[in-house]
Amino acid sequence: MSNIVTIGEILVEILAKEKGKSFLNTQELLGPYPSGAPAIFIDQAAKMGSSCGIISVVGDDDFGRVNLNKLKEDGVDISNVFIDKNLATGVAFVTYHLDGNRDFIFHLKNSATSKLRYEMIDMSIFDDCKYFHIMGSSLFNDSLIECAKKIVDYCKNKGIKISFDPNIRKELLNDNKMKEVLLYIYDKCDIFLPSEAELSMFIPGFSEKEALLNSGKEIVVLKKGAKGCIGAFEGKIYEIKAFESIEIDPTGAGDCFGGTFISCLNQNFGFEKSLIYANKAGSIAVSKRGPMSGNTTLSELEISLL
Amino acid sequence: MSNIVTIGEILVEILAKEKGKSFLNTQELLGPYPSGAPAIFIDQAAKMGSSCGIISVVGDDDFGRVNLNKLKEDGVDISNVFIDKNLATGVAFVTYHLDGNRDFIFHLKNSATSKLRYEMIDMSIFDDCKYFHIMGSSLFNDSLIECAKKIVDYCKNKGIKISFDPNIRKELLNDNKMKEVLLYIYDKCDIFLPSEAELSMFIPGFSEKEALLNSGKEIVVLKKGAKGCIGAFEGKIYEIKAFESIEIDPTGAGDCFGGTFISCLNQNFGFEKSLIYANKAGSIAVSKRGPMSGNTTLSELEISLL
Repeated sequence: MSNIVTIGEILVEILAKEKGKSFLNTQELLGPYPSGAPAIFIDQAAKMGSSCGIISVVGDDDFGRVNLNKLKEDGVDISNVFIDKNLATGVAFVTYHLDGNRDFIFHLKNSATSKLRYEMIDMSIFDDCKYFHIMGSSLFNDSLIECAKKIVDYCKNKGIKISFDPNIRKELLNDNKMKEVLLYIYDKCDIFLPSEAELSMFIPGFSEKEALLNSGKEIVVLKKGAKGCIGAFEGKIYEIKAFESIEIDPTGAGDCFGGTFISCLNQNFGFEKSLIYANKAGSIAVSKRGPMSGNTTLSELEISLL
Repeated sequence: MSNIVTIGEILVEILAKEKGKSFLNTQELLGPYPSGAPAIFIDQAAKMGSSCGIISVVGDDDFGRVNLNKLKEDGVDISNVFIDKNLATGVAFVTYHLDGNRDFIFHLKNSATSKLRYEMIDMSIFDDCKYFHIMGSSLFNDSLIECAKKIVDYCKNKGIKISFDPNIRKELLNDNKMKEVLLYIYDKCDIFLPSEAELSMFIPGFSEKEALLNSGKEIVVLKKGAKGCIGAFEGKIYEIKAFESIEIDPTGAGDCFGGTFISCLNQNFGFEKSLIYANKAGSIAVSKRGPMSGNTTLSELEISLL
């Protein structure tokens, strides 16, 4: 019974408490925070009022449970989240430089999520699905790539809209197989949600707005972080300025933006309103520490927009 | 040029700051602390004044570097510690119950150390070796088991004493292959350093002291934690009471005990003095937070014994 379905990594995040510290020194950390880009996305989409589900694997440990508790509490269907007995739930360590850049150390490729197999998935999760959201960060082994391709094909055949957020961190982009599957998904997606660097990678040779108008996609939304976003729909460009916000922790803001946007579309809020709500949700997300801590319900968001 | 050589996991430890908290809640943590049982052992053996080396693999990340910096600073030969470009350095998360028990979440089996192959090792590290120390916690895949067996055979042939600390946590003991290799190493070891539970596992059917006297080993030292230790050597039992200490963090205390004991033997301090020094070093280790933070130099240890 999920209108919006996503697939991919569920992990915990451990944050360095103080900015400007490398992991070369023992220091105060904060965590575990529930995390994983698709998990942040689907948590926010559910909080905004759509029926949502996620396909994933976690370990049989408290890092898995802290995520499942959060997702369940926020209304996400976790019946397709499986428990692996051998591998621990993934972990991302994040430390912030004084200039706002982040350094990561990941235990992800080798974590429980890596054990997802297509055969495990109960495809009835797609029975009421209108939007399937997939992110590049989730495609880190052959089995996950197979899942992604098969589900993209399945959704394409059933007329389920495919929403694609490349979400590729340099740490995760290290082989040609991944590039191939990114292009495979890009070709089939209806909704494309890139960052600035990703837009020029997938639609090269154009200026920003030309790229947005010439994509051939139903919807493209360029996420520009603190500079807002630009959307293209039915041959028209919508430029939305960012809302003011004090940045505490940007991790997850793009996923929160995407979750809000797709959840608004699913509730027929219209393109421009969906963009504005997504922008506002992203600005709230960066003001809270922890990847999902700044996720908001629809009513919280509407109050903040008054 | 190492008199004492060990092999095995190098990892970082992340500690829950407050006791009595599970990992189900976001909380203050402390880390990364350099860790890994063989790393703690060899760091302490080197601080005590013996020439020492370790064979291991770390990731190409700050968690690897924080360990290598510490080991190098304390005089350990790290020329046989290799860098794996694909897997991150292992992580152990530890939280303490109010009753002193610990809960762990590990990213170890799937970490950089898992990539150690026998062919990588420069066996000249054993040219001046008198003691090879090996721990059960390091035997978590086929390749590491192969390394252990081949080095044990090599050392046996060369007359290098084999020191064996079973050091098996319930989380790590989950297959028969591991039990087989533990018995293989036990059969060939000269020095056996079990905990109370491990003594009855390897030498069943005896009382404690009978087991110590009937092992057929050159040296057996039973580590009893806060209750001190009992050693058996040349048919005689040596019972050493624990030194008083305020326990802050017991992780690594047994490894520090072992490192001190073997380093003292290597410096010909005699059996009883080596036991007393090891006991004292263990009591200091538990009084400091962080697995290697309580490691002591020989002069620090001698001052504390005045």
